[in-house]
Amino acid sequence: MACIDLNSDLGEGFGAYACGDDAAMLGIVTSANVACGFHAGDPEIMAKTFRLAKEKGVAVGAHPGFDDLAGFGRRRIPLTAGEVERIVAYQLGAAQALAAYAGHRISYVKAHGALANWAEVDAGVAAAIANAVKAVDPGLTLLVIAASAQVKAAESAGLRAVSEVFADRGYTREGRLIPRGQPGAMIEDADAAAERLMAMIEARALIAHDGARIPTPVESICVHGDSPHAVAMAQRVRARLEAAGYRIAAFS
Amino acid sequence: MACIDLNSDLGEGFGAYACGDDAAMLGIVTSANVACGFHAGDPEIMAKTFRLAKEKGVAVGAHPGFDDLAGFGRRRIPLTAGEVERIVAYQLGAAQALAAYAGHRISYVKAHGALANWAEVDAGVAAAIANAVKAVDPGLTLLVIAASAQVKAAESAGLRAVSEVFADRGYTREGRLIPRGQPGAMIEDADAAAERLMAMIEARALIAHDGARIPTPVESICVHGDSPHAVAMAQRVRARLEAAGYRIAAFS
Amino acid sequence: MACIDLNSDLGEGFGAYACGDDAAMLGIVTSANVACGFHAGDPEIMAKTFRLAKEKGVAVGAHPGFDDLAGFGRRRIPLTAGEVERIVAYQLGAAQALAAYAGHRISYVKAHGALANWAEVDAGVAAAIANAVKAVDPGLTLLVIAASAQVKAAESAGLRAVSEVFADRGYTREGRLIPRGQPGAMIEDADAAAERLMAMIEARALIAHDGARIPTPVESICVHGDSPHAVAMAQRVRARLEAAGYRIAAFS
Amino acid sequence: MACIDLNSDLGEGFGAYACGDDAAMLGIVTSANVACGFHAGDPEIMAKTFRLAKEKGVAVGAHPGFDDLAGFGRRRIPLTAGEVERIVAYQLGAAQALAAYAGHRISYVKAHGALANWAEVDAGVAAAIANAVKAVDPGLTLLVIAASAQVKAAESAGLRAVSEVFADRGYTREGRLIPRGQPGAMIEDADAAAERLMAMIEARALIAHDGARIPTPVESICVHGDSPHAVAMAQRVRARLEAAGYRIAAFS
Repeated sequence: MACIDLNSDLGEGFGAYACGDDAAMLGIVTSANVACGFHAGDPEIMAKTFRLAKEKGVAVGAHPGFDDLAGFGRRRIPLTAGEVERIVAYQLGAAQALAAYAGHRISYVKAHGALANWAEVDAGVAAAIANAVKAVDPGLTLLVIAASAQVKAAESAGLRAVSEVFADRGYTREGRLIPRGQPGAMIEDADAAAERLMAMIEARALIAHDGARIPTPVESICVHGDSPHAVAMAQRVRARLEAAGYRIAAFS
Repeated sequence: MACIDLNSDLGEGFGAYACGDDAAMLGIVTSANVACGFHAGDPEIMAKTFRLAKEKGVAVGAHPGFDDLAGFGRRRIPLTAGEVERIVAYQLGAAQALAAYAGHRISYVKAHGALANWAEVDAGVAAAIANAVKAVDPGLTLLVIAASAQVKAAESAGLRAVSEVFADRGYTREGRLIPRGQPGAMIEDADAAAERLMAMIEARALIAHDGARIPTPVESICVHGDSPHAVAMAQRVRARLEAAGYRIAAFS
Repeated sequence: MACIDLNSDLGEGFGAYACGDDAAMLGIVTSANVACGFHAGDPEIMAKTFRLAKEKGVAVGAHPGFDDLAGFGRRRIPLTAGEVERIVAYQLGAAQALAAYAGHRISYVKAHGALANWAEVDAGVAAAIANAVKAVDPGLTLLVIAASAQVKAAESAGLRAVSEVFADRGYTREGRLIPRGQPGAMIEDADAAAERLMAMIEARALIAHDGARIPTPVESICVHGDSPHAVAMAQRVRARLEAAGYRIAAFS
Repeated sequence: MACIDLNSDLGEGFGAYACGDDAAMLGIVTSANVACGFHAGDPEIMAKTFRLAKEKGVAVGAHPGFDDLAGFGRRRIPLTAGEVERIVAYQLGAAQALAAYAGHRISYVKAHGALANWAEVDAGVAAAIANAVKAVDPGLTLLVIAASAQVKAAESAGLRAVSEVFADRGYTREGRLIPRGQPGAMIEDADAAAERLMAMIEARALIAHDGARIPTPVESICVHGDSPHAVAMAQRVRARLEAAGYRIAAFS
């Protein structure tokens, strides 16, 4: 039976601030990308999320981003490639330590927000992320945006790359995410999202808004959990994949 | 030949801000306590300090503190013991990752500033620090304030404890540091500091401002490097120890 | 017809994080205590909250707290009295400027969280807050915890003090707030809260959990809006006051 | 006798971190651009700098920048124009309040670092800064980079603009600052800097590295104080202006 992973960004609260329904999502996904205290998250919610993921049998990854809580990591901070290496290494180490503290283990890394979007198209930034992971632990997997510059960067660094597609984000004919705020960026309808995902998995390709196909393995599906609507879509996507005979399991 | 370690707080800059003469100090000390980005330090200076320490053959430790850059970690932030565990684990992991990135390896942990002063007298806080270190890596050493609550906490956690005395700080007859700002808190004269240290090493005891002796092993000497005067005192202390026939070497 | 003010802490989001239903509360209260970017809030939500308050005819006050977003201003940061003066002045000025930018005007100051609780009992801290307000604009009102050290401090500084009682917080027989987490700290039932408030207003006194009375003017009622339950309680309190013939209006 | 102003960025420390020799510079310059706590500075050093400037008869301006202490405000954070308005208003208000607290008064605003460099060439950002100042206090002066987009923005907002040239920075033939790190960006020799300044003042024009002239009033000279060398250059520049018969005085 073919396997596929479902991943989601979790642990994105900070101090007194909540963000998303982590408990619900940990009952749906198989991999949790946990914020590391730069764009979101803090030691409290990191430890709590790792512990809960362990209890529910969900794999955990470090989810490093820019040191920009005010912008939630969605603004590009103009760092050098070397600086990117060092913020990724820092956050990864912090996540590894708190995962160990909580009885779990980091098995992969996925870049967040504007850092991921930069690495999607910039080979230097993509290499910086891969280099940081390799330096800290070459046994970790890099969860990458499908058909992006990250794929080659992971391979060059000798890291395993796992390609993800987004359940609710549109693609350009170049295989890039349509930026938030532009037409077609978000897919609101859960059924439409689920059917498009099935088509992409079967085609082994991204399917752009205009029907263009960009070949890629589809090994993980990214779903969101920051609203009741998002949780419902994640459930719908999981149910559709299971109905099609896929086993939902962590890649790691 | 008897051995003794010299340690100093290094990597305490942040962004554009410099703090202390790290390059000079890395030529004097054998163990560098490197700030982890909470009370001071950032990924840039951490990586740079680890790299330079590696080149100079200096051992490196994580030096976690309160998340209080404005207060340089010298104000007590009222955390719970659990919160202390998690900020220590977070910072330790970040330091381990950046040390690996820089080709070095963290071999010990030393708490900073108000966190250390709290752990000096509070068994719960001392245990929290030890528990965090144990959870992340039980092979690490805890560099502790001599004759403090930290000694017992390290032992209870099964960690090796190394006891440090301060070259330039006065002690109360209870063996506690005289708080900064009080008479006798600082020893300004390098020769006086060096002679007092020799007396403590030979007595295997802290010697309080009033002559009282509090038995303790003296395994490491903490020296400062945040001023030209401090660097000169560190050199004087090292020279005095060598003249007395001690080998200056990292405990780790 | 007798007047009474209803105040609430608003604008407590940060970046992508939301906190409370500000729009609902601005339809209920007559004075909005707006967070100033230290314990919560940022320039975006400050301007937005001032603009909305202006539209709805709600008075606005600066609501300064400790510079501790992670602790939401609920942890006591050990500042000197002088440091308290300067963080209050800083936040007040920022709020005045953004209120002007949004077409509104700050008419009062109310300390937040752990800073307010400290000023409740510490004359030096209470004086520091009053001194800061006086230095920046002696025409501003200080909204103070009824029967606290803040009342005298405001008077000594020549500031008008307006005394508030809390709709949902229990009082000790000394007239102090029962600390959160202790029995009787929170009054959950809206009807009970409304009736107790009416009794306090009519008695011109705080009424402690054990029935003790501490005389004080009751000029403003503090209600919360951080949950649907809290919004409902605020509505209930307002309705009860109106039913009793009070006009609900800002004190300023 | 013709007048000219000397301005410098001061109050750029943070917490325990020092930056520059403010006391020396306040004996040389006539206008102090005081950091407002975002890219540098905090309430402590702001109040201290305002107080010292008052004592020495030096005018003070708010010096707002990006909220990026790690980058010292030298990295462009991709804010919207509206967001720029609000961070400028916030910082200006904070500075006004702390100046009042210290017995002084803000008379002008000068943008810092990457924010100023952006406003130098982007009309929208320049307008955002001017709009913020106008909304908070239309009586304030805007200290602008000579011959930049800021000049027109200030005029459009009805603000007085005062044009500054840099003592130690080279200009392109378009009248823009040569970016730091490029050849000709910095003028190291104090005598050369002083002579070039005299030539620009007399020509009423910027003089580019290739001799091109870009007409502009020259009303203020920006000097730096972040190193002993910089302080010496500032003294040299002042002496040269005085020798040429200029009166050194604040524009405000």
